[in-house]
Amino acid sequence: MTSNNVIAGETIHPDDVTIGVDIGGTTTSVGVVDSNGKRLYMTRFPTRGQESAQQFLPRLAQVIRNLLNELHPVRQLQGIGIASPAANWRAGTVEHPANLNWGTVNIVEMMRSFFPVPVVVANDCDAAVFGEMQYGAAKGMKNFIMISMGTGLGGGIVIDGKLFQGEHGAAAEFGHITIDAEGRVCGCGRRGCVETYVSASGLRRTVAELLARQTDSSALRGMSFDEITAEEVYNLARSDDRIATRAFALTGEYLGRMLSNIVATLDPQAVVLYGGLVNAGDLLAEPTRRSFEENALHRYRGQVDILISALNNGEAAILGASSLVRETFVAKAV
Amino acid sequence: MTSNNVIAGETIHPDDVTIGVDIGGTTTSVGVVDSNGKRLYMTRFPTRGQESAQQFLPRLAQVIRNLLNELHPVRQLQGIGIASPAANWRAGTVEHPANLNWGTVNIVEMMRSFFPVPVVVANDCDAAVFGEMQYGAAKGMKNFIMISMGTGLGGGIVIDGKLFQGEHGAAAEFGHITIDAEGRVCGCGRRGCVETYVSASGLRRTVAELLARQTDSSALRGMSFDEITAEEVYNLARSDDRIATRAFALTGEYLGRMLSNIVATLDPQAVVLYGGLVNAGDLLAEPTRRSFEENALHRYRGQVDILISALNNGEAAILGASSLVRETFVAKAV
Repeated sequence: MTSNNVIAGETIHPDDVTIGVDIGGTTTSVGVVDSNGKRLYMTRFPTRGQESAQQFLPRLAQVIRNLLNELHPVRQLQGIGIASPAANWRAGTVEHPANLNWGTVNIVEMMRSFFPVPVVVANDCDAAVFGEMQYGAAKGMKNFIMISMGTGLGGGIVIDGKLFQGEHGAAAEFGHITIDAEGRVCGCGRRGCVETYVSASGLRRTVAELLARQTDSSALRGMSFDEITAEEVYNLARSDDRIATRAFALTGEYLGRMLSNIVATLDPQAVVLYGGLVNAGDLLAEPTRRSFEENALHRYRGQVDILISALNNGEAAILGASSLVRETFVAKAV
Repeated sequence: MTSNNVIAGETIHPDDVTIGVDIGGTTTSVGVVDSNGKRLYMTRFPTRGQESAQQFLPRLAQVIRNLLNELHPVRQLQGIGIASPAANWRAGTVEHPANLNWGTVNIVEMMRSFFPVPVVVANDCDAAVFGEMQYGAAKGMKNFIMISMGTGLGGGIVIDGKLFQGEHGAAAEFGHITIDAEGRVCGCGRRGCVETYVSASGLRRTVAELLARQTDSSALRGMSFDEITAEEVYNLARSDDRIATRAFALTGEYLGRMLSNIVATLDPQAVVLYGGLVNAGDLLAEPTRRSFEENALHRYRGQVDILISALNNGEAAILGASSLVRETFVAKAV
């Protein structure tokens, strides 16, 4: 396996460490990972979407230096794996990420100017799938899909133990599967995309719809549309706010119905739910499972596990990205 | 490649012939195929759904004998590939096919009692995908899907040049992707399955709906629901019957919308349309392409060819099945 975005040369000792970075629209997570895929340390800092990459990367480099200094005994850094939106793995670039003011930058070269070690960059969703497969809920599985629910909805497909990317590298655009031809307007210009229902922003829209339709009193009636966050809805649902509870139930219902269609195409072993929205736990997972079992074709019922990520909050992406740099480098060295 | 349903032993000469059989609910097609995948002769006979397999197979054997007798010079039969609904490739059986009164039978053993040559049985849709990939519209493609539209709607997925069957052998159940939660009742017990819209029987239901909704005069108003066939609707559409024309346009619209969702998952090179309904040609393919381009996420527009099978009317299944027995046998011999 050769790749332009790996600049190798060092000999890597298996007891050395790699760094995994997950660049999110609002928060960047950084972890130090040992050769067994164990995360030793982890930290977070704000990404600042309005910054240029030239302003962001020195901050990231300083965070990495601080993390490495915490290691006793000192361990050698053997590589950095970066999970980013809009990443081009082959070119080593990040290309016009939607929520960052970066334009197109060669993040691999830029990181190499701070740390002269192998660096890879991978799509954040792909890195998370990779982490989930190696260390998470899908450990050892050969055929599964991941649904990643944050601000939007993305995902990944693993077939025969490999990430499936499609003919044009555009597979697993699950967020833009449409579930209602007359449904909600999506940022993509179409209507009824599942991410307008099943995501943090979809949840907010579902709350607004319920506030319009129902008469139940709810703390959500005192908040502006912009103030409503998934976390707030979650907290209210936990204290039995009926609108909040119903909003999660509906989200699970939509997701289960969408999964019944994806499963009719891919017949996977399992579906792993990942991303910020999954912090709601069973409040989301239970109606999802119920809706899947109700809506799936008979032959799939009871056949597909719907699992919550075991490595949420960016950890799957960190482990996946650090593992990618390790595997790529080892593959080159052999 | 080893498989229980291949009983080998003979030496095969590449200039010998194989037989491909496509068992349909109403018609069985049989072809003699040479080592280049060229079909030399082909014939059809009625399947008779009420017959047992014990009554059907002697008739099939006689048809095969007649075909072989037509070959000059005489060529040696090197194997028989059977495409059948409800086939279990590993076991060599056909298991409770929906439209045949067979129960479960070991069709490989039964055929071997007539012809002591290698025999394989494969799912009819899978055999057609295989034929399409080797000799048809998808020749040389590595990533494509096939949509097979007859009485129902089935399909197949090819990934990296191989038929993708999913974790439980149940992938590509495209007919049971739901497009309307409140939609038409399906034989599977659910609602809104795409095969209740996009298939020969779906077309009939669309006609009935249009007869109810519209006021256009139409020859279809003089026919009972049971009398309406896809062929009849096609003939009327060709003579500008407005209900018939609109029925095909709607069918293409549903299909294009469904394809936009499958493509968002699989990102294939092409979609091959196959089966009886495809005899309508551009009357179906044009509204399908238009609807796909209108409904697909922007990044897929203009990226995916929607092709009509080059080997329709069972020929893809015949070529695929005969090729499967050849490949399986050659693989065993090597």
